[in-house]
Amino acid sequence: MIRAAAQRLEGHARRTPLLSSPFLDEIAGRRVLVKPECLQHTGSFKFRGGWSAVSALDPETRKRGVIAFSSGNHAQGVALAAAQHGAPAVIIMPNDAPQLKIDNTRALGAEVVLYDRPGGESREAVGDRISSERGLTLIRPYDEPQVIAGQGTTGLEIAEQARAEGVETGDVLICCGGGGLTSGIAMALEADAPGLRARPVEPEGFDDVARSLISGGIETNNRQSGSLCDAIITPSPGEITFPIMSRLCGPGLVVTEEEALRAVALAFKRLKIVVEPGGAVALAAALFHADKIEGDAVIAVCTGGNVDADLFADTITKYD
Amino acid sequence: MIRAAAQRLEGHARRTPLLSSPFLDEIAGRRVLVKPECLQHTGSFKFRGGWSAVSALDPETRKRGVIAFSSGNHAQGVALAAAQHGAPAVIIMPNDAPQLKIDNTRALGAEVVLYDRPGGESREAVGDRISSERGLTLIRPYDEPQVIAGQGTTGLEIAEQARAEGVETGDVLICCGGGGLTSGIAMALEADAPGLRARPVEPEGFDDVARSLISGGIETNNRQSGSLCDAIITPSPGEITFPIMSRLCGPGLVVTEEEALRAVALAFKRLKIVVEPGGAVALAAALFHADKIEGDAVIAVCTGGNVDADLFADTITKYD
Repeated sequence: MIRAAAQRLEGHARRTPLLSSPFLDEIAGRRVLVKPECLQHTGSFKFRGGWSAVSALDPETRKRGVIAFSSGNHAQGVALAAAQHGAPAVIIMPNDAPQLKIDNTRALGAEVVLYDRPGGESREAVGDRISSERGLTLIRPYDEPQVIAGQGTTGLEIAEQARAEGVETGDVLICCGGGGLTSGIAMALEADAPGLRARPVEPEGFDDVARSLISGGIETNNRQSGSLCDAIITPSPGEITFPIMSRLCGPGLVVTEEEALRAVALAFKRLKIVVEPGGAVALAAALFHADKIEGDAVIAVCTGGNVDADLFADTITKYD
Repeated sequence: MIRAAAQRLEGHARRTPLLSSPFLDEIAGRRVLVKPECLQHTGSFKFRGGWSAVSALDPETRKRGVIAFSSGNHAQGVALAAAQHGAPAVIIMPNDAPQLKIDNTRALGAEVVLYDRPGGESREAVGDRISSERGLTLIRPYDEPQVIAGQGTTGLEIAEQARAEGVETGDVLICCGGGGLTSGIAMALEADAPGLRARPVEPEGFDDVARSLISGGIETNNRQSGSLCDAIITPSPGEITFPIMSRLCGPGLVVTEEEALRAVALAFKRLKIVVEPGGAVALAAALFHADKIEGDAVIAVCTGGNVDADLFADTITKYD
């Protein structure tokens, strides 16, 4: 399914390069290779899964439209993928999502429905209700095989690009919310680069995946908002993604919010890329938790770049 | 020479992707494709020319070392290229260059010699004196065939990538200082994509190349400093680069400093890349001078991303 998704994505998703800097290598004490999915269409890897899911629908179903719920990046990925297929898209977003993400999603042609996060229906309930009312196909952000397959195409690229860099063994660190990207990459590496091991990275206080990998069952976060790493905050790993991660991933890593912000500032200064805090936790782990990583080289996926200008400006000047 | 340089650069220089955003297309009124050379090693295209020149030296000459004078980006490009070849490098820099560029050049292993820009010897005289004293090979920033050949490899990539995007005709806008990159790209396009036309872009008040292309002779800027676009401020087009540009380039374009800063902010917001003001003038022309550009698509080379955090923070919040 991942290889089939890669064929459908060919010429539509961007093949992001692998970046590096001798300054980052020095901090980490090993070679650091960065996969900048912030450079993907819509500013995050989510376009891959969105395109994969929309392109996999039969034409009649697709014409009726799709619906997604998302704190922002999945929204934009699905919105653009739907627009490029000529399909309507309805996006359910929490009303405290960053304004840039709400604006972008609307500008990409989607109808945005805001919901109030703390009370009322869960976002899943809102999504299910609207999709059945209008005959839309719900595209879940991670617990959806075609979405996982699309995100997994990142792993096929990493396998090939790492080999070209002479890196055959080591850890691949992935910013992890529900686990769609992490499980997709893990399967792609299993097939194409068995010496590389996927490892999820999460912010402190939202380490449901790390704890789930330890306990062997699906663990839940106490809080579901209130992190600068909003893009990767989910209640728990998915029912489809968790068994994959459990079988294939190395132990999870956890970084502080400040470490994520320092990684944002270093990605600005040394790689010239814009990464949002949630998209920088894998790089933060590569740089600041070197003792928990194995191998001469580490690969970190920077998953998204949709950050408000004020927060980015504060971060790069504070940690300059 | 460009193709030979491309072979020497293979596996050393980064092949930067072509980026785009529907939001930028809407501003420009046509497709905008961006070649982000800010993602090149050392944060600018200058690494290509530096590597090309250092790698072309015979081993004995290279062992004695190289010397370069530069406001910063050429310095870093030569410093890293020399370090990776195991050759010593001396870099002559003006003492008002951005601190980040001075620091980076030193950290890349080069010996930095600062000179006082307004008075005293010209930087050319300083460079010539030190290189003859120590037996170093001077690598000029643009009027140097192997440097032009290295920068021209950007054009070979553009030709191939534009074709893959279905773009066979149109303008390729290039941030232009002395003309090394512009003349190199112009020759590469002549050979590989004759429907694409190179056009230099400069900041207002420093439009020596645009005026030279009109007059047919080498024109000079009145000022040689005092621009936020410091990276591309040179006294005049080169004696080698100007005849090439005169033969192959379309008319030059000129943008205001404010337009360059707005392009920096849009590249942050829409492309998730960090571009310095001088590296954004081509994108600024693509976005804000659409009436002076021909074709359904335009390609803009963002040439560098070595900008201080304070200036970048001010720019993205002011023009958000």
